[in-house]
Amino acid sequence: MNTEFGTYLVTQGSRSRGRTTEDVVAAAIDGGVDIVQLREKGATARERYHLGRALREQTRDADVTYLVNDRVDIAAAVDADGVHLGDEDLPIAAARDVLGAEAIVGRSVSSVEAARHAVQAGADYLGVGAVYATDSKDVHEEHAEIGTETVAAIADAVDVPIVGIGGITAANAPDVIQAGADGVAVVSAITVADDPEDATRELANAVREATTSIDR
Amino acid sequence: MNTEFGTYLVTQGSRSRGRTTEDVVAAAIDGGVDIVQLREKGATARERYHLGRALREQTRDADVTYLVNDRVDIAAAVDADGVHLGDEDLPIAAARDVLGAEAIVGRSVSSVEAARHAVQAGADYLGVGAVYATDSKDVHEEHAEIGTETVAAIADAVDVPIVGIGGITAANAPDVIQAGADGVAVVSAITVADDPEDATRELANAVREATTSIDR
Ligand code: NI
Repeated sequence: MNTEFGTYLVTQGSRSRGRTTEDVVAAAIDGGVDIVQLREKGATARERYHLGRALREQTRDADVTYLVNDRVDIAAAVDADGVHLGDEDLPIAAARDVLGAEAIVGRSVSSVEAARHAVQAGADYLGVGAVYATDSKDVHEEHAEIGTETVAAIADAVDVPIVGIGGITAANAPDVIQAGADGVAVVSAITVADDPEDATRELANAVREATTSIDR
Repeated sequence: MNTEFGTYLVTQGSRSRGRTTEDVVAAAIDGGVDIVQLREKGATARERYHLGRALREQTRDADVTYLVNDRVDIAAAVDADGVHLGDEDLPIAAARDVLGAEAIVGRSVSSVEAARHAVQAGADYLGVGAVYATDSKDVHEEHAEIGTETVAAIADAVDVPIVGIGGITAANAPDVIQAGADGVAVVSAITVADDPEDATRELANAVREATTSIDR
């Protein structure tokens, strides 16, 4: 899997200041986002399907990796590149059975033990969080703040890419990368920004600089 | 499709008087149920997946048709015979893309117009209701009582099998069949019965006698 995990947008139209998710995604693409995940908690499957098809066109045109949160069937129906699963979702192997061997299957974890378990179960990457406390409890499964220490411990424990999520901004993203994350996933830092394109670029630059400083 | 739609159980462990859904399904199979639909509103996808695999074994052994409510991915992952979709679920064509051409795809409708639309969209059968008022609003999407007149109008309007749902018992099932339904779907009439096997048999007999009287 050659996917870049640097800057990862999780969509949530209800937290996008009246902007459509299509507009937020277009701005994020222009700003250099690497991955877009269709989340949209609270929307019906039907709504997510129709929005999901639109995002598939946008991300395909831009060569941006495109994942769907939770719902393997929506991922399959919109021809996403994969799915991101939590504790209450289908098991990783079941998702892969439905989506095929090439699909990217990610998994949310909050501990070293869960991370090891997810990798043994076949996760291609891990979403690790909440790194920092977040006020977007309505749209996150990850509530408990685990801090960069746990990010570092998980990065040491597993060999798959890990993406920090939860309360991440351009200001603290370097700490998350320094701790060992391959990328950072955000909702609000892009969706509620005054300028989502600028916000994405700022975040992507912060991630890139931190990554480069580690490589040295 | 040679599926029998006479007696159709929709599962709901939370309305099964402490019995497991596996036990209720086993009793319904012994009582002569034709179709089992995994519903289990309020359960997580993970829980429905694990229960769904168990029901797949039970129904396969008994040669009973097995469907999953709403979730196309769970239907695929547990190797169900198909899926039953509502207004908020994936479109019929998208479900069929995921499940394959052989899958049974049913659709809930409450009006002649919706019935025609669903059949044009490719529904293999229709769940029509709520035929009668029901107190299980927590587990049914179908709230408004449409009565046997609408069942009759839908039966006249479409050529696919239709199954009445909502407040149906062995006592009123004959009226639903007389109105033109091919079968009746129930939750409570089986799940909260003193003896789910006897209740299934009583319901199946009522449906069979009413169907035979029409054929004459
Ligand atoms: Ni949260």
